[in-house]
Amino acid sequence: MAHITTDTSGVYVIACTPFTDTGAVDTGSIDSMVDFYYEKGADGLTILGMMGEAPKLTQAESIEITRQTLKRSGDKPVIVGVSAPGLAAIGELTKAVMDMGAAGVMVAPPSSLRTDEQIIGYYRNVVETVGTDVPIVLQDFPLVTGVQISSKTLGVIFEAHDNIVMLKHEDWPGLQKITDLREAEAKGRRRVSILCGNAGVFLPEEMQRGADGAMTGFAYPEMMVEVCRLANANRHDDAQDLFDAYLPLMRYEQQPGLGLAIRKYVLAKRGAIASAAQRRPGASLNARAIAEVERLILRQTAKLEALKQTV
Amino acid sequence: MAHITTDTSGVYVIACTPFTDTGAVDTGSIDSMVDFYYEKGADGLTILGMMGEAPKLTQAESIEITRQTLKRSGDKPVIVGVSAPGLAAIGELTKAVMDMGAAGVMVAPPSSLRTDEQIIGYYRNVVETVGTDVPIVLQDFPLVTGVQISSKTLGVIFEAHDNIVMLKHEDWPGLQKITDLREAEAKGRRRVSILCGNAGVFLPEEMQRGADGAMTGFAYPEMMVEVCRLANANRHDDAQDLFDAYLPLMRYEQQPGLGLAIRKYVLAKRGAIASAAQRRPGASLNARAIAEVERLILRQTAKLEALKQTV
Amino acid sequence: MAHITTDTSGVYVIACTPFTDTGAVDTGSIDSMVDFYYEKGADGLTILGMMGEAPKLTQAESIEITRQTLKRSGDKPVIVGVSAPGLAAIGELTKAVMDMGAAGVMVAPPSSLRTDEQIIGYYRNVVETVGTDVPIVLQDFPLVTGVQISSKTLGVIFEAHDNIVMLKHEDWPGLQKITDLREAEAKGRRRVSILCGNAGVFLPEEMQRGADGAMTGFAYPEMMVEVCRLANANRHDDAQDLFDAYLPLMRYEQQPGLGLAIRKYVLAKRGAIASAAQRRPGASLNARAIAEVERLILRQTAKLEALKQTV
Amino acid sequence: MAHITTDTSGVYVIACTPFTDTGAVDTGSIDSMVDFYYEKGADGLTILGMMGEAPKLTQAESIEITRQTLKRSGDKPVIVGVSAPGLAAIGELTKAVMDMGAAGVMVAPPSSLRTDEQIIGYYRNVVETVGTDVPIVLQDFPLVTGVQISSKTLGVIFEAHDNIVMLKHEDWPGLQKITDLREAEAKGRRRVSILCGNAGVFLPEEMQRGADGAMTGFAYPEMMVEVCRLANANRHDDAQDLFDAYLPLMRYEQQPGLGLAIRKYVLAKRGAIASAAQRRPGASLNARAIAEVERLILRQTAKLEALKQTV
Repeated sequence: MAHITTDTSGVYVIACTPFTDTGAVDTGSIDSMVDFYYEKGADGLTILGMMGEAPKLTQAESIEITRQTLKRSGDKPVIVGVSAPGLAAIGELTKAVMDMGAAGVMVAPPSSLRTDEQIIGYYRNVVETVGTDVPIVLQDFPLVTGVQISSKTLGVIFEAHDNIVMLKHEDWPGLQKITDLREAEAKGRRRVSILCGNAGVFLPEEMQRGADGAMTGFAYPEMMVEVCRLANANRHDDAQDLFDAYLPLMRYEQQPGLGLAIRKYVLAKRGAIASAAQRRPGASLNARAIAEVERLILRQTAKLEALKQTV
Repeated sequence: MAHITTDTSGVYVIACTPFTDTGAVDTGSIDSMVDFYYEKGADGLTILGMMGEAPKLTQAESIEITRQTLKRSGDKPVIVGVSAPGLAAIGELTKAVMDMGAAGVMVAPPSSLRTDEQIIGYYRNVVETVGTDVPIVLQDFPLVTGVQISSKTLGVIFEAHDNIVMLKHEDWPGLQKITDLREAEAKGRRRVSILCGNAGVFLPEEMQRGADGAMTGFAYPEMMVEVCRLANANRHDDAQDLFDAYLPLMRYEQQPGLGLAIRKYVLAKRGAIASAAQRRPGASLNARAIAEVERLILRQTAKLEALKQTV
Repeated sequence: MAHITTDTSGVYVIACTPFTDTGAVDTGSIDSMVDFYYEKGADGLTILGMMGEAPKLTQAESIEITRQTLKRSGDKPVIVGVSAPGLAAIGELTKAVMDMGAAGVMVAPPSSLRTDEQIIGYYRNVVETVGTDVPIVLQDFPLVTGVQISSKTLGVIFEAHDNIVMLKHEDWPGLQKITDLREAEAKGRRRVSILCGNAGVFLPEEMQRGADGAMTGFAYPEMMVEVCRLANANRHDDAQDLFDAYLPLMRYEQQPGLGLAIRKYVLAKRGAIASAAQRRPGASLNARAIAEVERLILRQTAKLEALKQTV
Repeated sequence: MAHITTDTSGVYVIACTPFTDTGAVDTGSIDSMVDFYYEKGADGLTILGMMGEAPKLTQAESIEITRQTLKRSGDKPVIVGVSAPGLAAIGELTKAVMDMGAAGVMVAPPSSLRTDEQIIGYYRNVVETVGTDVPIVLQDFPLVTGVQISSKTLGVIFEAHDNIVMLKHEDWPGLQKITDLREAEAKGRRRVSILCGNAGVFLPEEMQRGADGAMTGFAYPEMMVEVCRLANANRHDDAQDLFDAYLPLMRYEQQPGLGLAIRKYVLAKRGAIASAAQRRPGASLNARAIAEVERLILRQTAKLEALKQTV
């Protein structure tokens, strides 16, 4: 399978990990979920991320899930999250998944990092551990990691390591960071691919600022695919119209902690996975929350219908 | 002026503090801003909150701003944020503003608190400091304070102190907390007023869960007023239609750190204040961000126009 | 091998993990280190703790280190640290090490926990994951985890789970917590074993407050053994005299981040391990720091000599 | 009164703020405490620091305490802590205390700072606020502030602002930072004064690394004075012998949260202040802790007696 590069673009859906109601990995649902994502237009997948309940998996399970996802994905690129408290585990999992054909690995900084030097040193250690041949995605997600990486520090890291080819951008607010990076590239720094997270909630602005696409787990990936397509065609108002129709649900789905329960509920409802269950410990939706989600979906469907008739 | 009570409801706009471009308090804009908020339908104001740049003010300035706001507000209730690192400052400012006629004070927990006991002990200290006659709003905002207060701990605090009459609710996710509190009240616990923050982004759901209104600083307070009115009339779909029209800008305004710059830009554009300047240190919008805001406002105006024609 | 119980007492040395200068696990040094600890009087060992560089090991390495340590320890009890970001990894490692003959496992709370409910729920999940037959040590180390567990919350957890048999006590300050727990036991709550960490820096006071011994990695375990022996014989002044002679080095060793480098330097100097190397990323002592350590050791030796002559 | 400079050296005791048992500022004890500190050999004082319960004071109280301390100190230099959540309060208090004759002000970074840029920007704002004529002490205390400032970042700040003349050094571990700074100065960077905190627990090593003295609140300031004198005379073993006699109590006093209660207890016992009371909220020593302190003092007295006889 081809590796991701600094020119990678499009929609890489952050995949969840399907479980049965008793907490076992639901291998049947892995296949149906992978199919679902590609049917909806995904260019690739990112598995074993934070929303993939990766820390709840044993290493053996992580490897099996990767193997199955890669097989089912065929030629489509799959990025694998390998963040771990220690470099040895990162190195071990990276080797395993790259040998199986992963397109790259994604690494978030551990929450103990504070100074710029510590952050820069950490990614130097990561590159030394996984080697300079493995394409790496730097996940910049301060809301969860607590680690704030300035545009300048990102630049130092990108200049030091050619195989950090992509930024998973989810600083919040992070629009200026996209602009900073693209301006530095215009002045001569090598390009990196920028795919945006943050539940998709700023996708129209991110695309106009110079992002290459989206990497997040919103349960309607077709929205991201279509918004990116329209943005790339400079049809920004059409992109925003479509985006706005989905925004009420996106906003609801963005609730920290609860977000995954909402996504899995919608994915199960749409037939992508068999059960919305999370492995313990995990939140689940009560009747009240389900009613709120269902209401938002109904309204969303009506808006999309109305949009189609305008066009 | 009347005090807030456990039955207070409606929209209390979180007011910004207007500054001139050189960082002086802009007293002229205080009057125009107060007028603006009430013209848009606000039931009351909350000043000197986090978005009011309170920590950047001297105590003398805080008192003068309160005096002027109270005078201009006439009979309308004004809540004053008095959060401070120490109890002496809280006590001193509380006495000053209550003597001038404030309707109550708002206190957020200091970020050093961790265990339930520490949180409960803190509010006991606050009540001992300001006295049992002063109506207090407990501000529950873990995204900023880092202090997580469970529904159970809130219950212990409410049972212990009758003069904590209101919850400024901005846990995220926090919908279940509203339900928890209302269910405990249904079983006999005394009522508290719940006004919701979080930039208004969950207002329709919050109202259906039992909130009494909104307390946030979105630069179009008429949206909050109207959503609350429609929700109270059980016209939830109409409320949501209106809300959806404003949501793209609300979402943009919710960016941490940048949010106040956006709000002040819009308030200045709408004539409520003379300048969007923040006192140092503060973010300001660059041309790119301004273009994004302007585009969202244009689209919002068009949507509201379309809505009117449907009704 | 016997399991630890609520009556376990004595000195359980927190073992380091020996590495070669190139970062491989140094199996030869595991044997010499284990022998060293028991020769110095240790009652048992705790391996794969924070100071054991556990997060830098692969799961396979963790299991092999445990196997070798257990074999070399013969009848002596070995506790294994199994803290991990997710329950599945905790469950998997626990099963593996208990099957091999470990005396119990130690679990620290993940740093994301905040409210008392979250902490209590976490240990419920841990017990459900590892089962009620496995003796568990609750590691209470807020300086590193950021999780503050009140005496009351500890009590709720101990009452709920009989197989949490031991507290690794290293709150700071934590003397009152020992008193709180012992007083609750005097009033009828079941007993737990309390072994103290914090680099040994409060050991005399901890023993007088009712601790059952020490669990920390000071490179002179004979100090801990002798202080505990003297304290148990009510010879508290003799215990303190001995303690005071070691205190200047203990204090130096307690520096966060640098502490392990100092311990490994001393252990290598004393012949317990072949190399002071840490697996990457890790601090190492420069010439200046080594000179400081050597000076403290020289002075310590002189003081111990003087003490012997007094007795 | 003379200002502090980059050549300032000696012992600046961190003064507590004496309160009566009902929480009023005890002005009588301010005089006796100031006298006590100078009798014990202090070169100057630092008031309104973290251990001075500064956040519990109103601004008016802070100014009165400063006025009285300055008056009683005569020609001796007094540094005033002015850390506050906002620049306006910092500026206002700085102007007030410098006008009254303070020797300089001390500013710790707010705990919200993360990246190097944010830290550098903060001190630029501080200098712009207080002016370039006011001597500033940068307080580097990550254990409490959560802000980690690397040696490199300190260097950038010192190069940018000539009136930041002193570092209150209490990173932990921080010995290498002293060496880093002195090495940079040897290569041409301007000198800064370095006075060390951390409860004095590393004072002998700090002096040998190039510190200019101590700035901490240990209740036996004569120890700090004498250790600095001996270190400056290159009598490092004598300095360490004296230090070691006090270390058991210093260690006990260093407990976070409890430390101030211990210091005030000892200061009251020594007659420096009338009451050990802290203003609410504050810890106090129970009988058990008092017995531990008394025992350590008895042992300390005996050791000092023995030392005298050796010399």
